[in-house]
Amino acid sequence: MAAKRSGVHKKSFALSKVYGLLEPGPVVLLTTARKGRANVMAMSWHTMLEFEPPTVGCVVSDRNFSFAALRATKECVINIPTVEIAYAVVRCGNRCGRTIDKFAAFGLTAMPASRVSPPLIAECYANLECRVVETRLVRKYCFFILEVCKAWIDPARRVPRTIHHLGRGAFMVAGRRIKLASKMK
Amino acid sequence: MAAKRSGVHKKSFALSKVYGLLEPGPVVLLTTARKGRANVMAMSWHTMLEFEPPTVGCVVSDRNFSFAALRATKECVINIPTVEIAYAVVRCGNRCGRTIDKFAAFGLTAMPASRVSPPLIAECYANLECRVVETRLVRKYCFFILEVCKAWIDPARRVPRTIHHLGRGAFMVAGRRIKLASKMK
Repeated sequence: MAAKRSGVHKKSFALSKVYGLLEPGPVVLLTTARKGRANVMAMSWHTMLEFEPPTVGCVVSDRNFSFAALRATKECVINIPTVEIAYAVVRCGNRCGRTIDKFAAFGLTAMPASRVSPPLIAECYANLECRVVETRLVRKYCFFILEVCKAWIDPARRVPRTIHHLGRGAFMVAGRRIKLASKMK
Repeated sequence: MAAKRSGVHKKSFALSKVYGLLEPGPVVLLTTARKGRANVMAMSWHTMLEFEPPTVGCVVSDRNFSFAALRATKECVINIPTVEIAYAVVRCGNRCGRTIDKFAAFGLTAMPASRVSPPLIAECYANLECRVVETRLVRKYCFFILEVCKAWIDPARRVPRTIHHLGRGAFMVAGRRIKLASKMK
């Protein structure tokens, strides 16, 4: 299966391997859609909760325009950007989706997802289509639990340089890789 | 205030800045203590939930020896290691605390914490003393919510090379830093 738009090929990615994309802690772009309108926000507060089906917990503040859309539609896409589009990521974080179309404003391309309504972002190297499965901690912590129902990856990006937020505009860019004799999954 | 042991100086670190240590997604070492015995486990599934007081959500699997100690004592320390001790981190992940003293076995130095019983790990560049404040999702997801009550840092480590788990023994080592014009905290 393959998704294509604007010359970008995305390949289906095994759900069993999704944890390896999020565990290192990259900044992600969360897309939502409501009343025919898509929005995107930058997010760093997320964690894996289960390997399979891949289950992710994340904080979407109720000060964000995306909060109401996520709570109402229970669908979103987690898109993982790399340093090449770091500038667009920061601009997404700086502006509110209430007043602008961030896709058009920041040069991001919306591609249709296969299982959910919010779009994939073509420029991101991986895209995880998600549904909200648990909301008990939304009131207290704005903490949503998502199940990934479909994952996509750009097979051309072998070593994606993800970005990791250190606070106040400082980011760490993914560095070298090492391999150790681990029994951990 | 300063904590010292084995020539390692740790300085008190502002709670308001703790999010910047965990947001980039490093592997951490979680220490617990019960019945006079300390244990340590490697952990990658964590996220910030609140800036202040710094609140952290994390998964401690009930297959881990640390689970029962954390649930019973409601105290732990999140220690942030760097690549210099990556080998010890992996060994902590490979072995169960039921059968060995991981501190002695892997050359880690326990230092007394100031507010909780579990020890700080001297070799880690930052240490966060935590108390469990919410357990509603422990049964379903082994997800504990912690409040950081005291934070320590090694002031000599300007650019800590944290490690980030990619799965099955592969780690990304923190790379270069960039600064962008962000309005985000």
